[in-house]
Amino acid sequence: MRTRFQQGLDELREKLLRMGGLAEQAVERACQAYIDRDLNGCHQVLENETLINAAERDIDETAFDLMAMQQPMAVDLRFLLAVVKINADLERVGDQAVNIAERVMDMVELPAVELPVDIPRMATAVSAMVRRSLESFVEGKAELAQAVLEMDNVVDRMRDDAFIVLVKKMNTNPEATRQALDALLIARNLERVADHATNIAEDVIFWVRGDDVRHNAAQEAPVQPTAGTTGS
Amino acid sequence: MRTRFQQGLDELREKLLRMGGLAEQAVERACQAYIDRDLNGCHQVLENETLINAAERDIDETAFDLMAMQQPMAVDLRFLLAVVKINADLERVGDQAVNIAERVMDMVELPAVELPVDIPRMATAVSAMVRRSLESFVEGKAELAQAVLEMDNVVDRMRDDAFIVLVKKMNTNPEATRQALDALLIARNLERVADHATNIAEDVIFWVRGDDVRHNAAQEAPVQPTAGTTGS
Repeated sequence: MRTRFQQGLDELREKLLRMGGLAEQAVERACQAYIDRDLNGCHQVLENETLINAAERDIDETAFDLMAMQQPMAVDLRFLLAVVKINADLERVGDQAVNIAERVMDMVELPAVELPVDIPRMATAVSAMVRRSLESFVEGKAELAQAVLEMDNVVDRMRDDAFIVLVKKMNTNPEATRQALDALLIARNLERVADHATNIAEDVIFWVRGDDVRHNAAQEAPVQPTAGTTGS
Repeated sequence: MRTRFQQGLDELREKLLRMGGLAEQAVERACQAYIDRDLNGCHQVLENETLINAAERDIDETAFDLMAMQQPMAVDLRFLLAVVKINADLERVGDQAVNIAERVMDMVELPAVELPVDIPRMATAVSAMVRRSLESFVEGKAELAQAVLEMDNVVDRMRDDAFIVLVKKMNTNPEATRQALDALLIARNLERVADHATNIAEDVIFWVRGDDVRHNAAQEAPVQPTAGTTGS
């Protein structure tokens, strides 16, 4: 009986990782569509959102069933609650990818202009944050989660820089206002993806490690779910 | 023993309502600061964020303790998971209020300009959505939650309208670009608050009523937590 529960936890972890893969891919695809001015890529992102939404629901239900199946130990309950919270963040990463795709669709309608902002670099940083936050969860490594929290400051700075140079661009080239605004909003969407990765990292530390760095200083008190870490 | 658990559920519901009040107040205060160009109001919003963060943590821990206390019935488990999810949304409503306050602080530094956008009207609509989504939770009324979902479209349209007129303003009055951009971002922040209210309404329908409208059509299958609805 206990073993079935453990298997359930392992399967749930796998499902969450696949969900993370879908969300990360959506962001990367939307940013690739930005680079290539590719309407098809945008449509793909919009279509894949339904997959992400279905995956979110499936994970929520699986976590719920595991909680209801038997009295889980406190450490497993923390793990299950972490899954529910992380799941919600991943779904919203998918939403941000959709927002980016919509801005790209707007830009493709307009003349291409040179914009002083490095969206691909920002996208790379943000994707790495999502990936690492999930790694920190799967491997139960608080150091990895901590590294994600630090990367968030870097992305915030990129967004602030984008803000400054793009407003200047709007002032000097009013005919490029709309494109500059689209790029600015994409930078904000990417920063929001980084925020979700940060939330995930905080949840890993709070729920899985029994700690709370969300609004306090970080301390470490390692706690592993009873199902242990799989080799992944 | 069961009675203590029921009391715990009632207390948790009260805590979540207080949390909702704090989050709603933060948004209203930030928008009042926008109207009055009031730096003090902005600082109050920033200071109150720590209260909201502490409340979030307290609610998470209380929900966790109730889940761990005894084997909750499935309906109570759904209720507790709804609380955890709604709690996260309310904390992010607080974050949006902080974002608005920061934009207002930027605007106060700049010359006041006439902007073709009705932020107070949008703020009123958005506050009502947050309030009603919480009412729908407390009273277990799916119709109220459904009404919140419909209001979201109205707010989305307000945001789109703001986008169009403010970009036009940037083009015709380049010297007002930065102020127009601040207002545009405030409109986006308010729309994000509306999104959180929508998430809450969806959670009410999915978790509390045993239904899923998040990504499907709405159906009704009323389920009440065993603690029942208090008269609030």
